[in-house]
Amino acid sequence: MSGLEELIDRYCQGWTDPSPLERRMLIQSTLDQHAVYCDARTGPVGMDALIQHINRLQQQRPGARVLRTSAVDLHHSVGRFSFHVLMADETVLLEGVDFFELSGDGTRLQRVVGFFGPLRTRDG
Amino acid sequence: MSGLEELIDRYCQGWTDPSPLERRMLIQSTLDQHAVYCDARTGPVGMDALIQHINRLQQQRPGARVLRTSAVDLHHSVGRFSFHVLMADETVLLEGVDFFELSGDGTRLQRVVGFFGPLRTRDG
Repeated sequence: MSGLEELIDRYCQGWTDPSPLERRMLIQSTLDQHAVYCDARTGPVGMDALIQHINRLQQQRPGARVLRTSAVDLHHSVGRFSFHVLMADETVLLEGVDFFELSGDGTRLQRVVGFFGPLRTRDG
Repeated sequence: MSGLEELIDRYCQGWTDPSPLERRMLIQSTLDQHAVYCDARTGPVGMDALIQHINRLQQQRPGARVLRTSAVDLHHSVGRFSFHVLMADETVLLEGVDFFELSGDGTRLQRVVGFFGPLRTRDG
């Protein structure tokens, strides 16, 4: 596994780990201090508000896990990967794609934009 | 069709129109003047260099067309859509996803990041 995939998997573990303290450490170690996150339901939020958001989700759905389901596709410090959100009983709550930007030194995420569900077919 | 989908289709037509003058007008009318484009093979480039890039591609593959193949998914001024690049004989040269950011007033694209091909399966 590449360093980039390890970074992404540690970030996903920051949504997943059962320990709030572990989740905070994982998010803090994978996001740039000025990182911004948003998805269709949340944000844009900085790191602290993202950690609080994840804490709320974990309280609502204890044991939910975010699992990367594709290789990580990167060019020009921007990338994408797909993921599943799995419930504690392993059912898939949702699938999505995260687009991200790396920090200047390439070691952290400075922006993550999540999209949920498959792309809808075009209407016309 | 929404105004957003019209914007995206005019942008795709800026890659597609057989007339170099039309292509330039379409790109200039859909991109913010400070817009930046990149994909795995090109960029980051500004508007003028993008127009030159499209001109070169049209010289290499006369009649190639970029066709949006999904609805446009948008939140927080960031969005995504899938597309096909069709050759003049209608064969699919490649499929991809463009990820974009809208300008502050929502009427133009200020950033487009292209990804080619489906996401690869994860290795481990």
